[in-house]
Amino acid sequence: MTEHDLVRELVEKNSSKIILLVADGLGGLPLKTGGKTELETAQTPNLDRLASIGTSGSSVPVLPGITPGSGPGHLGLFGYDPLEFKIGRGALEATGIGFELGSNDVAARGNFCTLDSKGLISDRRAGRIPSEESFAVVEKLQRVNITGVETFVKPVKEHRFVVVFRGSGLDGRIADTDPQATGVSPLDPQPLNPNAQKTADIAKEFVKQARDILKDEPKANGLTLRGFADKPNLPSYEELYGLKAAAIAVYPMYKGLARLVGMTLVGQPQTLSEQINQLEASWEEYDFFFLHFKYTDSTGEDGNFDEKVKQIEQLDAMIPKIEKLHPDVLIVTGDHSTPSKLKSHSWHPVPTLLVAETCRPDGRQQFSERDCLGGGFGIFPAKHLMLLAMAHAERFGKYGA
Amino acid sequence: MTEHDLVRELVEKNSSKIILLVADGLGGLPLKTGGKTELETAQTPNLDRLASIGTSGSSVPVLPGITPGSGPGHLGLFGYDPLEFKIGRGALEATGIGFELGSNDVAARGNFCTLDSKGLISDRRAGRIPSEESFAVVEKLQRVNITGVETFVKPVKEHRFVVVFRGSGLDGRIADTDPQATGVSPLDPQPLNPNAQKTADIAKEFVKQARDILKDEPKANGLTLRGFADKPNLPSYEELYGLKAAAIAVYPMYKGLARLVGMTLVGQPQTLSEQINQLEASWEEYDFFFLHFKYTDSTGEDGNFDEKVKQIEQLDAMIPKIEKLHPDVLIVTGDHSTPSKLKSHSWHPVPTLLVAETCRPDGRQQFSERDCLGGGFGIFPAKHLMLLAMAHAERFGKYGA
Repeated sequence: MTEHDLVRELVEKNSSKIILLVADGLGGLPLKTGGKTELETAQTPNLDRLASIGTSGSSVPVLPGITPGSGPGHLGLFGYDPLEFKIGRGALEATGIGFELGSNDVAARGNFCTLDSKGLISDRRAGRIPSEESFAVVEKLQRVNITGVETFVKPVKEHRFVVVFRGSGLDGRIADTDPQATGVSPLDPQPLNPNAQKTADIAKEFVKQARDILKDEPKANGLTLRGFADKPNLPSYEELYGLKAAAIAVYPMYKGLARLVGMTLVGQPQTLSEQINQLEASWEEYDFFFLHFKYTDSTGEDGNFDEKVKQIEQLDAMIPKIEKLHPDVLIVTGDHSTPSKLKSHSWHPVPTLLVAETCRPDGRQQFSERDCLGGGFGIFPAKHLMLLAMAHAERFGKYGA
Repeated sequence: MTEHDLVRELVEKNSSKIILLVADGLGGLPLKTGGKTELETAQTPNLDRLASIGTSGSSVPVLPGITPGSGPGHLGLFGYDPLEFKIGRGALEATGIGFELGSNDVAARGNFCTLDSKGLISDRRAGRIPSEESFAVVEKLQRVNITGVETFVKPVKEHRFVVVFRGSGLDGRIADTDPQATGVSPLDPQPLNPNAQKTADIAKEFVKQARDILKDEPKANGLTLRGFADKPNLPSYEELYGLKAAAIAVYPMYKGLARLVGMTLVGQPQTLSEQINQLEASWEEYDFFFLHFKYTDSTGEDGNFDEKVKQIEQLDAMIPKIEKLHPDVLIVTGDHSTPSKLKSHSWHPVPTLLVAETCRPDGRQQFSERDCLGGGFGIFPAKHLMLLAMAHAERFGKYGA
């Protein structure tokens, strides 16, 4: 029996409310041996109080030692094994710009490149063409017209864009056309599976028309396509957990990830404060609320220890407003660690906290990496967090008699 | 996606150095309830200092409650699931005497036995014939000559020896010929799979010729064969981790295990001190160093608590010399526990310590079974240790975007 089959078997509905507050990249490291992490440094009276009444633990996003991107990091928190459920590069890129993928879609990431007079690649990134220029070129590509499919071309940033083909019988098993070298031609889109022949032909036609449209561009006169991918096949929150779920996020990537598991995007909040207002506004209508807070990650990526500390303190300050809603289950965690010291995502476990009436005390007095180690959830795979959320919301029946 | 596929996908090369110091049978037990283990009793100022700056944990060699032999114990530490990757008895026996198995080899363990005038087994171990006598008998078996294969016969100890057949199309799926009883004949080598018929015929011919050679031996006039096995099919360290790995071990068994995963044996050290010298000498040439220290296990097997304590202290005294090399990752662990109290391997988790720049502090002040329990790695499967080693050596890219 898979874990998801077990979930489906045990789910019971009630009127409980669950909040999953994801502080992106929450976990950290001390700058120097013997020092404190960002979370240990921050003054977090509210989170510390919650730690003393809730249950803590250290969540492992994928496996020990494995650093996840945002995709696998969030899939784990949402209860999907990130090694089993994968989001192809093209699908993630489309998701990241807020494009809503459908089940008839195949998405690929496009890169503009510069071709010389012989059609060979002279610059794989079209001189890192500025976004403004690139967006104008993308606009021209809207003229591509391929019989039998709808084609969407969307800008991302600089030389990067996204192509989505929508039609029946498409299959994303297509090889990259980027030869990863200069002085050679872009490759033809080749099917990696016989079922993908039709899609390869469509991609080929796209390239042909695009090349014609771009032929007079000074920099972006060619293109390569990578990471062809279908929409990932994730069971929805509604089907799996019986939860009506809302996502309250600022950035497209996290909105997209939430939408992939069937959450509804509510509001257009731009700040944490607006996110909390949205939470209040949507409170009656949903069972589950995913709140995404970006700045613990971005400050970590910037290597700005002090600023990450401040962002944690700002998050802490919002906790009382969240508590006022009296959620049955309130979870505070991260999708991975982003230590300022490393200026990047890392593999270190993520401090995690769950507060509910049904929590067993675990003697924690603080919310920190160190304290979470001895917490009641121990060191556990992130994919099990939703099992705990559902249990503490009393939304699971008994397994076996 | 399997864990090894994930590893292959994420591996990045750099110039970091990793040391895996295996104190065989490191974990222990107090002799009396309420007492201290060997490691807790030993004065280990260096390991304790490392514990205060590194991350600790308790590694579970196979599964809770499962006592491993040296083979599964080391496979786990090397990152191979010991339930998935198995080393057949014959292959392990050959490995243990330092015989380098090839992919065309089938190895079996042989036992001399005594046959009565009717050819029935009267003593299954040939009166536990002393090694010197047995070795002479093994020497006579070099005369065996089988068309189409090379045959190697190597002494082990007392009545035990190893036979290796080398040739194309061999298959180790052959039943044991030891009837596990006296008063009956040795069994014929029978194929357990149609593909193994040729190998069974070869084994039969071996037994026939050997019986003829041995017919006048007073004790060892017969033989049985057990544990037929191919060379285990383990991905190499180079292929899996992209690591150029050196093994610095004194005993043949551990050299053999290291060779099975593609490590290079360096030097012929006879003492820990010589091992450290070899480590220094080979430092520039390799990325990964497996150092095996035997005496924490052998003293445990002897039930000599005090001597095991001394061996741990001698190991501790060598730590500063290792530190002087400034490894990027230094791991100290064991392949299993060997409590003096039990005089044998045991299933208890193994105290484990990893030191790197990227360690998150876990509040440990001592290296001991008790302290490791609350360490940052928690209680974890030994097979995940290499993931952590690779991560802390910053030799893994990010999983997913």
